[in-house]
Amino acid sequence: MKSDVVITIGRQYGSGGRLIGKAVSEKLGIPFYDKELIDLAAKECGYSPEFIKANEQRSTFGFLSNLAAQGFSYSKDTLPPADTLFIAQCKVIQDIADKGACVIVGRCADYILRDRADALHVFIRSDLAPAIKRVTEDYGVPADQAETEIKRINKSRAAHCRRYTDRIWGACENYSMMLDSSLFGVDGCARVILAAVGEAFGQ
Amino acid sequence: MKSDVVITIGRQYGSGGRLIGKAVSEKLGIPFYDKELIDLAAKECGYSPEFIKANEQRSTFGFLSNLAAQGFSYSKDTLPPADTLFIAQCKVIQDIADKGACVIVGRCADYILRDRADALHVFIRSDLAPAIKRVTEDYGVPADQAETEIKRINKSRAAHCRRYTDRIWGACENYSMMLDSSLFGVDGCARVILAAVGEAFGQ
Repeated sequence: MKSDVVITIGRQYGSGGRLIGKAVSEKLGIPFYDKELIDLAAKECGYSPEFIKANEQRSTFGFLSNLAAQGFSYSKDTLPPADTLFIAQCKVIQDIADKGACVIVGRCADYILRDRADALHVFIRSDLAPAIKRVTEDYGVPADQAETEIKRINKSRAAHCRRYTDRIWGACENYSMMLDSSLFGVDGCARVILAAVGEAFGQ
Repeated sequence: MKSDVVITIGRQYGSGGRLIGKAVSEKLGIPFYDKELIDLAAKECGYSPEFIKANEQRSTFGFLSNLAAQGFSYSKDTLPPADTLFIAQCKVIQDIADKGACVIVGRCADYILRDRADALHVFIRSDLAPAIKRVTEDYGVPADQAETEIKRINKSRAAHCRRYTDRIWGACENYSMMLDSSLFGVDGCARVILAAVGEAFGQ
C-alpha cells in the first residue's frame, strides 16, 4: 500500500467521521489532524487558539478560496478574522500534506488538496437517528436539542464550504468516495476506506 | 457474506456503473438487471419494448412516486406512457428484489427499494475526461459530441429522478456509498463494493 496517501474526511455532524478518520490513521500508522490544525493555524496567523475556535466558522464577507489557492499574501489587519484563518489553514493543510501520509478531518481539506494525485477524499454521512444517538451519548448534547444541533452544525458546515470553496458540501463531484456510517459503522467505514486506499494507491 | 443482498447502482453516464454492477453480480454469483428490466416492465404494462425505450425518460406531467409506492392501481389508458412505465418498473423491481439477491442498475431502484434493510445503494460518479474516453471508445459516441451527450444524459437522469422520486440525483443522503470510478476503475469499484457488502451484511 502506498505510504504517502493523504486522506481527507468531510463528515456530517454525528456521523462519527472523526472516529473513522482516527481509526484509519491508526490502521495505516500515519498522523491524524483535526483540532490540532487549529493550533497550527493559530501559530501561523497570530491569533490565539481560543479566538480561532470562536471565529472558525463565523463567516463575515468576502470570497477567498481563489486568493488562498494562489498563495495570496494576507494581513490579519485588513481581512475579517474568519478569512485570515481560512487562508492560514490552507497553508497549514498544504504543508502537512507535503510532509507525507496523513488523515485530515474537515477544514475544507478536500478542496484545498483537490489537485493532489495522492489524495483520497472521503465524505461520511449518517441517518438522523444514529447521529442523534451519537451526539447525545458521546458528545453530551441534551436529547431535546440533538436534532436541532445536528441540523445547525451541518448547515454551518455547508455554508462554510460554500463560502470558501464555492462547492456544495457533500456533493458527489467533490469526493473520491462517500460512506453511510449508519450502515457500515465506524470500524466498517474504516475498513472500506482501507480497501479503497489499496485499490487506488496499492502496488 | 449474506446471500440475499440487493444492490442498486445509480451512475453518471460514462462512469462505467453498468460494468461495475455486472462485475459485482458475477463476483457474487447473483442476477444482474439493467436493460432486461425494460422487457419485464414491457410485459407488465402492455407496451412494446421499443415503445418503452423511446419513452422511458420522457417525462410529461404528474408526480407518481407515492402512488407507485402505495401500489396505486394504474391504467395505461388514463396516464401518460412514461408514468405508466414508471409504475410498472416499480412493481417489476420490487418483485425482483423479493425473489432474492441481485444487482439492479438505474431505474430509480435506490428509491423504489429504499425501505429494504437488505439493500446496498451505490452511486458511481466519474470525472469528465474518463467519461468522454469511455463513451467515445466503448459506446461509439462521436468525440465532438461526447461532452454534450454526457451532460444531456446526466441532466435527463437527474430530471427523471426528481420527477418520480422528489430526490436529488446523486445526493449523498440517498445512497449507502458513492465511488469515483475515475480513481478506482471498474474492477477497483467492484472490489470496494464487495468489501462494503461484507461489512454491512457479512456474518
